[in-house]
Amino acid sequence: MNWEIIDTHAKQWVKEAGEKIRLSFKTKLNIETKSNPNDLVTNIDREIEQFFIQHIKEVYPEHKIMGEEGFGDELHSLEGVVWLIDPIDGTMNFIHQQRNFAISIGVYENGIGKIGLIYDVVHDELYHAIRGKGAYINGKPIPVLKETTVKESILALNATWVVENKRIDHNLLIPLVKEARGTRSYGTAALELVFLATGRVDAYFSMRLAPWDVAAGAVILEELGGVVTNLRGEKLDFLSENSLFAAKPGLHQTILNDYLKGGEW
Amino acid sequence: MNWEIIDTHAKQWVKEAGEKIRLSFKTKLNIETKSNPNDLVTNIDREIEQFFIQHIKEVYPEHKIMGEEGFGDELHSLEGVVWLIDPIDGTMNFIHQQRNFAISIGVYENGIGKIGLIYDVVHDELYHAIRGKGAYINGKPIPVLKETTVKESILALNATWVVENKRIDHNLLIPLVKEARGTRSYGTAALELVFLATGRVDAYFSMRLAPWDVAAGAVILEELGGVVTNLRGEKLDFLSENSLFAAKPGLHQTILNDYLKGGEW
Repeated sequence: MNWEIIDTHAKQWVKEAGEKIRLSFKTKLNIETKSNPNDLVTNIDREIEQFFIQHIKEVYPEHKIMGEEGFGDELHSLEGVVWLIDPIDGTMNFIHQQRNFAISIGVYENGIGKIGLIYDVVHDELYHAIRGKGAYINGKPIPVLKETTVKESILALNATWVVENKRIDHNLLIPLVKEARGTRSYGTAALELVFLATGRVDAYFSMRLAPWDVAAGAVILEELGGVVTNLRGEKLDFLSENSLFAAKPGLHQTILNDYLKGGEW
Repeated sequence: MNWEIIDTHAKQWVKEAGEKIRLSFKTKLNIETKSNPNDLVTNIDREIEQFFIQHIKEVYPEHKIMGEEGFGDELHSLEGVVWLIDPIDGTMNFIHQQRNFAISIGVYENGIGKIGLIYDVVHDELYHAIRGKGAYINGKPIPVLKETTVKESILALNATWVVENKRIDHNLLIPLVKEARGTRSYGTAALELVFLATGRVDAYFSMRLAPWDVAAGAVILEELGGVVTNLRGEKLDFLSENSLFAAKPGLHQTILNDYLKGGEW
């Protein structure tokens, strides 16, 4: 498998898709809700996913595709090469803010992440990694992550998760929020993962994410020494939804041992 | 008082200060803590405040200055013209992220906001209002704010405030977080206020802010129909710290009546 060539194609398509999204700001969005009123989707999400699928199928007919909007393949295994696509990660931000969203593309082989691309369209910032070759922002190497303490950490964590909820005993997270230097929430897993990759935040927590939300970010983060698991510290399953806990090396183990373990969930 | 001329001076100094901050990214920061370990200050915060004070004192020797770093005047009244300066609002972001911070300058006359300037240095976005003349982003008019519902709202609200804390009964905010479309937290009052001014979020809550954190944002927001009060719905006191609740018109009254009122605090 020539990952460099696949990577070149992926980058080119991501940049073209970004240009389409920027142009879409001038036209009126057609907004619908999916499963619940807050799970929004636009015509742009759909068009961008179809754009990727068309290009991938043309050049790599043997590759499989898993996409948020459901135009990809229905997969029961991660065998072979699989593209995991979120055409617009952070759709709610896209609608309300016209910023703080990203295109996220992970390319996996037999379940192992090989390429990760996250494109912050509005800021024209492309975060990018090929396994074993480092991670880059607009072609410039991102330094490897350093260890830090909870006291000096900024946590990316939505207020929803420290309020009673169905997914986690919120009492586990409360002491952590109190001990940390601060919390932030940006509403886009893809960008929160690259903010972690670039040291802008030190850990990121989410209770439920789909494989395409995390696939690219995991490749980029792991290339820099970051640790990506579910909230129990287990490996992610890229065929189903997962909770997510990603953090700098060292900090991941500390938070897992001192705060998250022992929860009944 | 010729506010147009004062405004021209203020804008020019803000742009110059922004350029100094951008240059500072190339030098090493000297970081200290103030009252508590998370209240950080850098040599850049200090230099920028002194830069403003020097220029203001030179051109407007009769004006008074209130600044975060304490190089201004010690004020016991808001009589006359007062400049309220936060040289870097979001110092923690400035240190950890080199983004998501802003210069914030409000100019008040006898306690009434006349000019508000908030400069997102990294994105080169200048938010700006003169009372009665509308609000602008990089010179382009910002549309007046429209009413919205809690269900369709994005709240700018830090996770800290829905965890038991000294400043507010967190149980008041929990039903609001559950009902809203989503929450975000950016860690900079100045930018959160202009995100509200531009409709990127619909309400902003903070439990304790200094006058210089809010002075500029209040002028910009009120120019667009936004409502800026403390969490009890009372007018802010620009001589002391305040809680802050700013929101779109209509939504402000709804949240105040249906969620915040009746709290014992």
